[in-house]
Amino acid sequence: MRTDAGDIIIALDAMGGDHGPAVVLPGAAIALAKRPELRFKLFGDAARINAELDRLPDLKTRSSVHHTDVAIAMDDKPSQAIRRGRKTSSMWLAIDAVKQGEAHAAVSAGNTGALMAMAKLVLNTIEGVSRPAIAAIWPTLKGRSIVLDMGATVGADADQLVANAVMGAAMARCLFGFRQPGVGLLNIGVEEVKGVEAVREAGGLLREAELPLRYHGFIEGTDIGKGVVDVVVTEGFSGNIALKTAEGTAHQITAVLREELGKTLLSKIGALLASGAFRRLKQRLDPRAHNGGVFLGLNGVVVKSHGGTDADGFSSAVAVAADMVENDLVDRIIKGMKLAPHDHHEGDQPDAARAASTG
Amino acid sequence: MRTDAGDIIIALDAMGGDHGPAVVLPGAAIALAKRPELRFKLFGDAARINAELDRLPDLKTRSSVHHTDVAIAMDDKPSQAIRRGRKTSSMWLAIDAVKQGEAHAAVSAGNTGALMAMAKLVLNTIEGVSRPAIAAIWPTLKGRSIVLDMGATVGADADQLVANAVMGAAMARCLFGFRQPGVGLLNIGVEEVKGVEAVREAGGLLREAELPLRYHGFIEGTDIGKGVVDVVVTEGFSGNIALKTAEGTAHQITAVLREELGKTLLSKIGALLASGAFRRLKQRLDPRAHNGGVFLGLNGVVVKSHGGTDADGFSSAVAVAADMVENDLVDRIIKGMKLAPHDHHEGDQPDAARAASTG
Repeated sequence: MRTDAGDIIIALDAMGGDHGPAVVLPGAAIALAKRPELRFKLFGDAARINAELDRLPDLKTRSSVHHTDVAIAMDDKPSQAIRRGRKTSSMWLAIDAVKQGEAHAAVSAGNTGALMAMAKLVLNTIEGVSRPAIAAIWPTLKGRSIVLDMGATVGADADQLVANAVMGAAMARCLFGFRQPGVGLLNIGVEEVKGVEAVREAGGLLREAELPLRYHGFIEGTDIGKGVVDVVVTEGFSGNIALKTAEGTAHQITAVLREELGKTLLSKIGALLASGAFRRLKQRLDPRAHNGGVFLGLNGVVVKSHGGTDADGFSSAVAVAADMVENDLVDRIIKGMKLAPHDHHEGDQPDAARAASTG
Repeated sequence: MRTDAGDIIIALDAMGGDHGPAVVLPGAAIALAKRPELRFKLFGDAARINAELDRLPDLKTRSSVHHTDVAIAMDDKPSQAIRRGRKTSSMWLAIDAVKQGEAHAAVSAGNTGALMAMAKLVLNTIEGVSRPAIAAIWPTLKGRSIVLDMGATVGADADQLVANAVMGAAMARCLFGFRQPGVGLLNIGVEEVKGVEAVREAGGLLREAELPLRYHGFIEGTDIGKGVVDVVVTEGFSGNIALKTAEGTAHQITAVLREELGKTLLSKIGALLASGAFRRLKQRLDPRAHNGGVFLGLNGVVVKSHGGTDADGFSSAVAVAADMVENDLVDRIIKGMKLAPHDHHEGDQPDAARAASTG
């Protein structure tokens, strides 16, 4: 997937995110310092981009600037964004560079809904993938796991869950290098409750299939943080809520800890002595180090950076994109989807009808 | 809801949970020490119960023992449990005591699916409630919130989400005493994604309705731990996953913290000096203090204790049951459901068909 020179070319939506070029470009520079094979195509307001580049000479020599006046706002709805930004916005042009073969991947800190809508329109989905997914990188007790879908689509039938398993495993291969990543289906531990038929059916399909992954079985929410599996598969509503709830819980615990440590002189001194441990805790859970939502199921690599992140965080998203390019994410998904089993139901029935028909 | 003497009578499934009478009875004794108005009906193996009661003289004077040989296993499926334990098991008899007016509430640490199946069969649902819910008590930065449904049913249409809001608000009134509890609908922050129509429709209904609650709007997973609302409403799959993921994250953070604090002598000394703060952190997040899943929507109070909890934890579940009795949970839900708005759709369409019909 690289150029003949071995370069990896990343198209950047320089205007995306809460801070635009002021974070995107320093972020690219940090990524470049670690991976000198990177080159960048920068889409956005040329004046603002060049002002940043003047302070980042190494990045400047590895970048080309592509001016556009149009930028997608963080609160634009996907349909608005497409009406306003089709073929003109920095977000669209970055994705289109991938489509045209001028870049290997696109990275944007712009709004998720708009980015996904444009990416689908420009790149189309891989054969066999009915709906793309967004995968998050989740810090665990064992290292890192991949969790998907984070909200690209809501609800999933068994085939879609199987596709998420295949795509998540391909990403795990690119990110962690495991030949047979462990994959678990997120479920709830209640027997005989209607509505989880799709999850059970997907489990049956994955158990029987011959795929480049090791199917672990069902897991529950408590297992995510333990790192029981490399890839956690669910549909977008519960995936998004799991991620946001984990973020909220982490924030809550650190806030309570800080409050309690500040209550007495003794605990303040204790906190000071243990500050190295707290710093390492923070590093291990630092969302910036795990920044980068990978769009899976498209004919091209698109990575979404958190909109409010800083340059370090943005550089993580760029590094993730480079890993996906270097390890042929899209090819792996194409090959995986050819091996993916399908359930025996015809057509595109809604889940409820499907569940009823399978009893 | 009390007796003429002002007593609150709790029926206990003495055989439920991982430890049976060895935890249930000491738990009841702790609850009784705090609330002398409690009386207990103890269902289960009389020999084992009496052996525990001999060590708990105060509890003995306030309890009656009702022998049965049949106990539901923690891994019995709901249908198995009903076949085997109908009219004979300690779990069934405890619930039936509520039905017969011999107890005000039933508490069991037995398996959730069996308990819900029996409770539905014995007590029936309140008019207007198509499906009961299980509500959890969630520690937050501001205190405690109620989150439902935790997995009694999967998927929910707008009417069911509205019912959950009404029932959760009634429970908040009983537990926290707020006249107008703040209620939020759990949603994901992605616009124009199909599948969240039920949530949006429920939001519209709650905004317009005149109910004894303050509708806050949509919230995301990050808001739960902040305590943004008193009652978090969702369907059972995402609710269960949110709860389990939060538990997993809390475990993960404390494990990482412990590991990092043990790495150097300096941080070990720091941890020792700050041990009071760590103890208070643990107390504030202690799942035992928040134990008690309340079954909502039934003609009677049933509370599920965590199966693996200790006596302190079980006593929390008993205290929650007593709060629900004392503050007339069931009457509040009955009244609330009479005021609950309904969407304009006919019949019991599956969500997908409903979503399609509303565009």
